[in-house]
Amino acid sequence: MPVTAADIALAERLADVAGAAILPYFRGAHGMEAKEDQSPVTLADRAAEEAMRKLIIAERPMDGVQGEEFGTREGSSGKTWVLDPIDGTRAFIAGRPIFGTLIALIEDGWPLLGIIDQPVTRERWLGVAGRPTLFNGKPAEARRCRDLKDAILATTSPALFDDDQLHAFEHLDSAVASVVLGGDCYNYGCVASGWLDIVVEAGLKLHDFAALVPIVEGAGGRMCDWQGDPLHAGSNGEVIAAGDPARIEEILEALACRGQGHHHHDH
Amino acid sequence: MPVTAADIALAERLADVAGAAILPYFRGAHGMEAKEDQSPVTLADRAAEEAMRKLIIAERPMDGVQGEEFGTREGSSGKTWVLDPIDGTRAFIAGRPIFGTLIALIEDGWPLLGIIDQPVTRERWLGVAGRPTLFNGKPAEARRCRDLKDAILATTSPALFDDDQLHAFEHLDSAVASVVLGGDCYNYGCVASGWLDIVVEAGLKLHDFAALVPIVEGAGGRMCDWQGDPLHAGSNGEVIAAGDPARIEEILEALACRGQGHHHHDH
Repeated sequence: MPVTAADIALAERLADVAGAAILPYFRGAHGMEAKEDQSPVTLADRAAEEAMRKLIIAERPMDGVQGEEFGTREGSSGKTWVLDPIDGTRAFIAGRPIFGTLIALIEDGWPLLGIIDQPVTRERWLGVAGRPTLFNGKPAEARRCRDLKDAILATTSPALFDDDQLHAFEHLDSAVASVVLGGDCYNYGCVASGWLDIVVEAGLKLHDFAALVPIVEGAGGRMCDWQGDPLHAGSNGEVIAAGDPARIEEILEALACRGQGHHHHDH
Repeated sequence: MPVTAADIALAERLADVAGAAILPYFRGAHGMEAKEDQSPVTLADRAAEEAMRKLIIAERPMDGVQGEEFGTREGSSGKTWVLDPIDGTRAFIAGRPIFGTLIALIEDGWPLLGIIDQPVTRERWLGVAGRPTLFNGKPAEARRCRDLKDAILATTSPALFDDDQLHAFEHLDSAVASVVLGGDCYNYGCVASGWLDIVVEAGLKLHDFAALVPIVEGAGGRMCDWQGDPLHAGSNGEVIAAGDPARIEEILEALACRGQGHHHHDH
């Protein structure tokens, strides 16, 4: 089943209710202790996912739901909503307005619709398979990058890579113009809008990357794993986003060095 | 001479003209090549510093000016304006609205007034020696941090440390709750507002840190170098900001490990 206008309208409403649930907790933690179960980010995460699940259950009782906080509810329609209420919890905690709510609609494990919503700055990217990506309602277009050495590369934190992945990332790092750290899902929106050329990450869960795929690809970019394969529910969490699909092969080659000439020689 | 109301009014106008000069270049680079001398960030940097220098020369012909882009103009009043039109050039280039314009007023090398201005989100921190720091006109207050292991630590990029500094930073990293990367000057505003506990960086120039000192300290925090000494024009660029001054000694102890038990043993 293709994505319908009703799916898109529901996705936008999900982002609206999530943002409304999150905002009261952002920067509201002044003087609160950072307790594991009652931190502002945990409260915001749960409140946003509850609000989204409630809306999905009311409007689409046959759709599945898979959320970061409250797990999976099987559906029978073939469509599943994949939710990450706050991607970039560290950015949220630190008071940076570049965390995001991620909403994806998947079918047979393939992402067909994605939203990145930043409720503080009121920025929203919407991607739907086969349609142009929209940034705040206007078409977003990834930029060309004629030479890898001119590329701006982003990753949230090198600490999220294992040793081999870090070695591969550093190889790519040395081939591009510069690297910017932090950013989480916001980086992928920046790729879709043509401000950033490449994002490379690892260890992502389905709820971390599903929404990003239709957004980056609908803007003319490409997303894949570190072997060049398209991302779906069974992917291993190694993610590449490139604004210019013509650079994918070089990125894959740079990352393919892992395990070579390194202190780990497992393969 | 203490900071006057006229100094504060001028500082705010400098932030206004810088923001107006920068905004047309932010995210406007779509399709432009990243040339060394004509990149959008360089054009924005120069336009903003020119606008600020012009205003200072018109209003305060006797004050000195020290800018990141156009160097130093000696004054005779004893006061010098220290300007960094875009701190966080990588964030700017990548389309992130958390770069900042830094404006400081120093006397005998000591920072007496500082502004961090974020023109996209319209956020401004203003600090004046001996006065409460203001965030968008309202008092900002750094938060207490009773235990270092609960602290949120930020640094822009570990790549900006040398090997010994990195070793020291990793020692501190292992003693806190979590680390958030990226952020540049915005991190120090977040410390002043009580959203973040500690920032540790190295390699900063006077124009990178002068404005931050009155902002963090006017909010109840503390800034110093890695030896615990206050920051002034002659500091070596190693910077600590702590929202809770009671944690400074532990931070200094954690950082003091550099060169110990490390593969470099230069001292």
